[in-house]
Amino acid sequence: MSTATITPDVAAPTGNLEITVSRAELLRELTAAQSVVERKTTIPILSNFLFEASDEKLTITATDLDQSLKTSCVAKVKKAGACTIPARKLFDYIKLLPEGDISIKLMDNHWVQIRAGRSNTKMVGMARANFPQVPEFPEVGVFKINAASLKNMIAKTIFAISNEESRYTLNGALLVLKAESMAMVATDGHRLAHIEKLGEALEGISGEKKTLIPRKALAELSGLLGASETDFVEFADDEQSLFFRIGGRVLTSRKLTGQFPNYEAVLPRDNTKFVIVRSEDLMSSIQRVAQFADERSGAIKIRLEQNELKLSAQSTDAGESEDIIETPYNYDPLVVGFNSSYLVDFLRATGVTGEVRLEFKDAQSAGQMRPEDGNEDVKYRYILMPMRI
Amino acid sequence: MSTATITPDVAAPTGNLEITVSRAELLRELTAAQSVVERKTTIPILSNFLFEASDEKLTITATDLDQSLKTSCVAKVKKAGACTIPARKLFDYIKLLPEGDISIKLMDNHWVQIRAGRSNTKMVGMARANFPQVPEFPEVGVFKINAASLKNMIAKTIFAISNEESRYTLNGALLVLKAESMAMVATDGHRLAHIEKLGEALEGISGEKKTLIPRKALAELSGLLGASETDFVEFADDEQSLFFRIGGRVLTSRKLTGQFPNYEAVLPRDNTKFVIVRSEDLMSSIQRVAQFADERSGAIKIRLEQNELKLSAQSTDAGESEDIIETPYNYDPLVVGFNSSYLVDFLRATGVTGEVRLEFKDAQSAGQMRPEDGNEDVKYRYILMPMRI
Repeated sequence: MSTATITPDVAAPTGNLEITVSRAELLRELTAAQSVVERKTTIPILSNFLFEASDEKLTITATDLDQSLKTSCVAKVKKAGACTIPARKLFDYIKLLPEGDISIKLMDNHWVQIRAGRSNTKMVGMARANFPQVPEFPEVGVFKINAASLKNMIAKTIFAISNEESRYTLNGALLVLKAESMAMVATDGHRLAHIEKLGEALEGISGEKKTLIPRKALAELSGLLGASETDFVEFADDEQSLFFRIGGRVLTSRKLTGQFPNYEAVLPRDNTKFVIVRSEDLMSSIQRVAQFADERSGAIKIRLEQNELKLSAQSTDAGESEDIIETPYNYDPLVVGFNSSYLVDFLRATGVTGEVRLEFKDAQSAGQMRPEDGNEDVKYRYILMPMRI
Repeated sequence: MSTATITPDVAAPTGNLEITVSRAELLRELTAAQSVVERKTTIPILSNFLFEASDEKLTITATDLDQSLKTSCVAKVKKAGACTIPARKLFDYIKLLPEGDISIKLMDNHWVQIRAGRSNTKMVGMARANFPQVPEFPEVGVFKINAASLKNMIAKTIFAISNEESRYTLNGALLVLKAESMAMVATDGHRLAHIEKLGEALEGISGEKKTLIPRKALAELSGLLGASETDFVEFADDEQSLFFRIGGRVLTSRKLTGQFPNYEAVLPRDNTKFVIVRSEDLMSSIQRVAQFADERSGAIKIRLEQNELKLSAQSTDAGESEDIIETPYNYDPLVVGFNSSYLVDFLRATGVTGEVRLEFKDAQSAGQMRPEDGNEDVKYRYILMPMRI
């Protein structure tokens, strides 16, 4: 199942690594790599960074066996070699050092000496050979994906991924690449976020390529995209792994196995009753009334009447609350219940700006939310199952 | 022991309170009052604010029986009266309302209706008669204390107050008022912070007035002083309570009973070996080496040698770390251990600016830290017990 394996890496370079590196460069790369490191792992080597030095370059690898990140920076390499260093301790220590050069040297018993100015520290590392092997970025089958589009798609769907670890195939978002569009979809069975970006020229795609990306990889990817100015992400996969190259950094993730649900079947088709409201107004009203919702269900009631959207909630403990938003509505009255935090999630994802369109069929059918932004290239929709209220 | 008592307040005004108040004014006063309300109380009425309206004024009271705060704002009073409202819920709700007028009306069964714009909410309150009585500010024996000086004294000592609830008399700071000076001192038995402000004209004080102020009252006081532009705090006490009037707000606190330790006996007198270092340098060095200190004790070693201050720490898990600060020192060498977080606390309290003077006698005696700021009017000192290392 894992991308990285715990088998000792016999082909590993040896030698007593000795380098000098600029604190700013090192810190930048450690910052990128440290979020992959699991805080609480039962496998000690996974708390360490792997440092490999050769050819005036320091390569840093972090892995939790599910995700791995490999990055690098320039270094003065006095002796090529490799070592592992406790990741959290090193990151915290380097953060606390002043700007300047840092010398790193592998000592006996896997201790690593770190010197900077008048600071001198020795950290207890582990044998480089214990560090899991991380697969290499494939040479073929590489697709170039627009970085900004990918970042946006992640932000618009990641919150809808299931938190239930047992729902294995829902623990990620599905990336759908086509020759001239791409899409991402995520669901937890109660709501579904779907975004499609048209007008993307994706070289090398024929038909449709569907890839399920685990939530943690999406979160890492989003972080890496935020910290990079690259225009394109290189994406590839093999039997077990997904690979993303963002600038000089490579994120590797195990694949999620199993079948993502047939989401197209649940996309509503005749939600013909709709209202359009300002996102900010809707957000404020939901937050106000949701305070009085049943704490467990978070259910609030949406009531559509002649030119009015009424939101309300009540609970025996807290009391009851109602908010009214005036907006054109001329269909039959409708009452439907939703989980307020699901509504809030969507509004947050759209930045709580502009207008949002709420589309309904009846109290038993899924509702749909879409930004009313007139953007023809990006189709974003959010489907919510109703609650009995 | 308590300032407020849970006895029903029989003299309480009755009547179906009905008022209109500006959201901005109400929110400002609720913000001041809400921090007194205990999040987790087993006495339901203490989760409520008491609202009392009469004479174009709304008075808001919050209490946790140890501390009470009474504040007020202008209101349009349609019907004078009183009610209680769940504090947290109300505060959160008012925060979420837009600017404008808010109508508050007591309904049947202690329900309170809150209306603003097109928002309409009913909260479940409790009978006003259940709200504890809060003592009134005394009419005599009132001292005027400089607000800025008081705020500074709190900031410089509050962190040294003991967290051990069993050490009853150490759960507060001692305020010492004299005719021409005031001082505050706090200790947890391991370190002691003492600050004295000279040149304060305190009317009505003859000799010395010592008052032990509980930590929570100091924290509230600090918050109230930060939110107020008043130049003076009015201070008074009676058998059971302390009273502070800050602008229009009155904080009442139960007194801590018992004898504060004789701190004067522990103030070091012959710490003749000293160094002066930049606070920022010392802070950075401590933080770096403290990462490698034993996690439980946090002990770091200070070694003074010819023109050098060496800081070091080591632990079997993490490794070892040393930092050197160059600074004039010509006395006999000295090695002494301290809890690193205690050193950090003091540097934080001084804002990590300017220089700090470290004064020692030997490895078995308390060390002393003082800001090297040349301020003759404010004498601030911090005494630390050494650790065996």
